[in-house]
Amino acid sequence: MEKTDAYITMPLGFEANGVHSGLKKNGVVDLAFLYSKTPCNVAGVYTKNLVKGHSLVRSMNIIREGKPVHAVLVNSGNANACVGDAGVQDTEHIASKVAKLLHVDSSTILHLSTGVIGTRMPMDTITNAIPTLIQTAGNSEEKAHLAMRAMMTTDTEQKEVAAELTLHGKEISLAGMAKGSGMIHPNLATMISLFTTDANISHDTLQKMISNAVIDTFNRVSVDGDTSVCDSVIIFANGAADAPEIKEGTEEYDVFFNALHDLCFDLARSIAADGEGATKCLEVEVLHALSDNDAYLAVVSVCRSPLVKTMFFGCDANWGRIMTAIGYSGANFDPNKVTITIGGVQLCENGSMIGFDEALAKEVLEEKDIHVIIDLNQGDAHDRMFTCDYSYDYVKINGSYRS
Amino acid sequence: MEKTDAYITMPLGFEANGVHSGLKKNGVVDLAFLYSKTPCNVAGVYTKNLVKGHSLVRSMNIIREGKPVHAVLVNSGNANACVGDAGVQDTEHIASKVAKLLHVDSSTILHLSTGVIGTRMPMDTITNAIPTLIQTAGNSEEKAHLAMRAMMTTDTEQKEVAAELTLHGKEISLAGMAKGSGMIHPNLATMISLFTTDANISHDTLQKMISNAVIDTFNRVSVDGDTSVCDSVIIFANGAADAPEIKEGTEEYDVFFNALHDLCFDLARSIAADGEGATKCLEVEVLHALSDNDAYLAVVSVCRSPLVKTMFFGCDANWGRIMTAIGYSGANFDPNKVTITIGGVQLCENGSMIGFDEALAKEVLEEKDIHVIIDLNQGDAHDRMFTCDYSYDYVKINGSYRS
Repeated sequence: MEKTDAYITMPLGFEANGVHSGLKKNGVVDLAFLYSKTPCNVAGVYTKNLVKGHSLVRSMNIIREGKPVHAVLVNSGNANACVGDAGVQDTEHIASKVAKLLHVDSSTILHLSTGVIGTRMPMDTITNAIPTLIQTAGNSEEKAHLAMRAMMTTDTEQKEVAAELTLHGKEISLAGMAKGSGMIHPNLATMISLFTTDANISHDTLQKMISNAVIDTFNRVSVDGDTSVCDSVIIFANGAADAPEIKEGTEEYDVFFNALHDLCFDLARSIAADGEGATKCLEVEVLHALSDNDAYLAVVSVCRSPLVKTMFFGCDANWGRIMTAIGYSGANFDPNKVTITIGGVQLCENGSMIGFDEALAKEVLEEKDIHVIIDLNQGDAHDRMFTCDYSYDYVKINGSYRS
Repeated sequence: MEKTDAYITMPLGFEANGVHSGLKKNGVVDLAFLYSKTPCNVAGVYTKNLVKGHSLVRSMNIIREGKPVHAVLVNSGNANACVGDAGVQDTEHIASKVAKLLHVDSSTILHLSTGVIGTRMPMDTITNAIPTLIQTAGNSEEKAHLAMRAMMTTDTEQKEVAAELTLHGKEISLAGMAKGSGMIHPNLATMISLFTTDANISHDTLQKMISNAVIDTFNRVSVDGDTSVCDSVIIFANGAADAPEIKEGTEEYDVFFNALHDLCFDLARSIAADGEGATKCLEVEVLHALSDNDAYLAVVSVCRSPLVKTMFFGCDANWGRIMTAIGYSGANFDPNKVTITIGGVQLCENGSMIGFDEALAKEVLEEKDIHVIIDLNQGDAHDRMFTCDYSYDYVKINGSYRS
């Protein structure tokens, strides 16, 4: 596998676009479009929030039926959630409008929404922009980047990844892009992420791959502990590379899965690094827990603790806050066996202070990427999660998001 | 019951004091002392954090034995936690020093610590200050307020409450004080709070009262979702009012319990209002949940959500964040039945937007005290919790706490 310059239309047969409809201010692009003339097998994973956006619910139902899909329209600026029956009709109406212009059935058109909850989408604004969105779509790198930018909300970085594989002697491409910066926490997928591939993979196989690929990637990112009502990771496979089908239990399956997993990992990590107001990316590992669940509880608790996150913002080696967070996590462990290491500097041993070089610790804490290892020194289970620090800007961004 | 001007030495027979030992900078008082010549029956509730401070563990053990206690020394500036055997010896040494000066057994002296974790207490600093702390203690209001201030960490307000009761024809006093501003979350007691009374109550009865009084008061406050390693609520009853014993199952029990519960409520609410960086106090009620646990999960999730808390800081009626927080809380409910009201302004009905007056909503959100009602419209269970908003100052305070 070779990672390449990344854009979502790199796999054969995909077109993309992004336009400014007026959902967002200042002329920024706010409607994204991704299309394959050849119908795609599609699979996805979705938020576990009991409250789900109307657009998402419709798209989930289509994907779960396992029927081929031609396109997805993604709007930012409005989540199309909690607006009642109108929201159900609105997403159906948007899909129909797209379908009509593409001369396909509306059940082959997905629609995803991200943005403010509880406000109806300005339908004229969106529908007026759809013809241009579709007519000017293309497979260029530029069009692909426009689609990426049109999905973004508070993101500051485009998050695009791609890989090229040779399977059965054929070149296969796989590309992905993600938006997501705040309201990010495991269970699930904590953002909108789209993948395209020109590989030939059945719906069921694709579903298995994406479900497994998110477990230790998208489901191991926390920005603020909140999980949104619109989160989804969706993969489109159109078979345009004209290669034999990738089937479970084959070497090709493993190669493709590993590539997909790697890209999920890269995007997930980018989401943590671009967390709202983040000044640094934290990789937190819990080692030698008594069980998988103990490892998970401990790592989530640390990544969710506002006190831990502000401590990293302040570059303060106040490791007691990490002890505290695992202490109330619900994980079963012996506090007297814990070792905590930050950026290679060991801060405590057997749950107790040891002398450490404050100047060195400060230096490590001022890095952009920080690796935290919490060794419980008891069992064989481990877990890892990515998060970011809490800064003034997190408060600023979220104190005035809707206005 | 009559609430009065409040100070911890209001009940007969108690003395208090606060001095500056040097644990904290700038000459602020940092050692608090509370004493009763008549030995007290004592009961308490404590943090459920698996990691517990050494001072707290020693004090818990003493209280649980049910033997009489004479005094408690509280130091701020250092949590005496995660420092290994030295921390165990240090708290024992401090108690012995106090006991010697009071001519009592060291097992009658409690010691509590609050502050930075993982750094050993500067023993000379503390022990050098103990003689003056004890010798200049007294029962004046001024001395009581000094003790209050000496417990404070990032608190900005003194939190003192008191009540006077007539039981069996005798005047009984009950007083309380609490410190706690950040690292506050249920389970449990989430702060240090001390109560004194001159009533005559057995250890077992006192334990039952305090355990019940915290359930919907101290255990229903969240500032940042973090639970500290030193939290405790302890009540001292010295019987100095010379009144008959208050026994379970009597009218006097109910009157005293209600007074204690009221004071716990007032202190708990003050802690939320004085949350680190808080600009407002939020009372969040969940009504008509299917079960007590569903009500609890929903209310905790809302009070813990950084997105909800920053929304209140920004005075933004973005109720979708409240829907989102209950949606991922784990509570079982039907999103299509939810009604949310903030400060009397209804923002949604049946889980969907309704027209509301944005100007009026903004006005309500600019209040210091805001009442949020989330009606799940399904069952008979309800819960309530107090929290505060997240401001820039929360980040500022916690980004530089240790330094």
